Amino acid sequence: MENDNSLRRLKTIEGHLKGVIRMVEEDAYCIDVIRQIQAVEAALNKVSSQILENHLNSCVITAIQGDDQKERERVLKEITEVFDMANKV
Amino acid sequence: MENDNSLRRLKTIEGHLKGVIRMVEEDAYCIDVIRQIQAVEAALNKVSSQILENHLNSCVITAIQGDDQKERERVLKEITEVFDMANKV
Amino acid sequence: MENDNSLRRLKTIEGHLKGVIRMVEEDAYCIDVIRQIQAVEAALNKVSSQILENHLNSCVITAIQGDDQKERERVLKEITEVFDMANKV
Amino acid sequence: MENDNSLRRLKTIEGHLKGVIRMVEEDAYCIDVIRQIQAVEAALNKVSSQILENHLNSCVITAIQGDDQKERERVLKEITEVFDMANKV
Repeated sequence: MENDNSLRRLKTIEGHLKGVIRMVEEDAYCIDVIRQIQAVEAALNKVSSQILENHLNSCVITAIQGDDQKERERVLKEITEVFDMANKV
Repeated sequence: MENDNSLRRLKTIEGHLKGVIRMVEEDAYCIDVIRQIQAVEAALNKVSSQILENHLNSCVITAIQGDDQKERERVLKEITEVFDMANKV
Repeated sequence: MENDNSLRRLKTIEGHLKGVIRMVEEDAYCIDVIRQIQAVEAALNKVSSQILENHLNSCVITAIQGDDQKERERVLKEITEVFDMANKV
Repeated sequence: MENDNSLRRLKTIEGHLKGVIRMVEEDAYCIDVIRQIQAVEAALNKVSSQILENHLNSCVITAIQGDDQKERERVLKEITEVFDMANKV
């Protein structure tokens, strides 16, 4: 279900990106292209947050409630890593 | 010329994004999907910078060396705006 | 322990920020000031990641292993929220 | 004038950061600390934009209208660089 939602959003973003490519092909004004690229990025951020939310409510709960400490550590480390990267892109 | 370079990069990013969509369709691990989305964003940032660089070296120079003060102000305001947005996405 | 580490980093950042203020007072070159502000932000990002890591390894584990479903949901929702904001600042 | 405005904002941010340090010293809830750090970053972004705006309307205009091509290139390159970094922090 949530997966379908992310998929739909990503396909919309693909359409948006194709529009950006067309703009560059048609020599659109640079600043307008940059603004559209930034809009694509904002939309990608929203999908990331949504996917993370699903992940927390499924895999992360399972791992933390499970008995495998290594797995628990791995799962939590990954969250810090994507958070860290979210600060950078 | 620089335009071709941006175009080529954007088309590569489109391929990358298609790959992300396929990952979601095939139920890939959430964190791997997020990482790929972040890689797409990092690549989009690079294209933005490149397009801005071209813009500065063409339109902005022309506008600032021109006689139209309104145009000059407009062009400079746009740069602050995309910089501002770059901080947000 | 980890708390001490975050505290030390934040105090270093405070010193860095005071340096930026001094630069502005002494009319330093704008671009140098912006670069230093960006360095302060990069350092703040690192502290955030570190604090999130500690949080995941303490409160989040406790909440998810606990019996209070509401608390579990609250704790996970917060992580999505700070991730979402990390994408914006 | 604009300089005074940036200076005032930076001093407010310094106060905000001191507040964050106090929160950590008093063992405040991790997520609240992260949110405050993100608020500090958002405020720093605003100052950066403001400083860039002033820079564009002074040094950049002077350089571009001047006769020194090297200087012109240098000034434009710097803008791409801080834009690039804005995408990263």
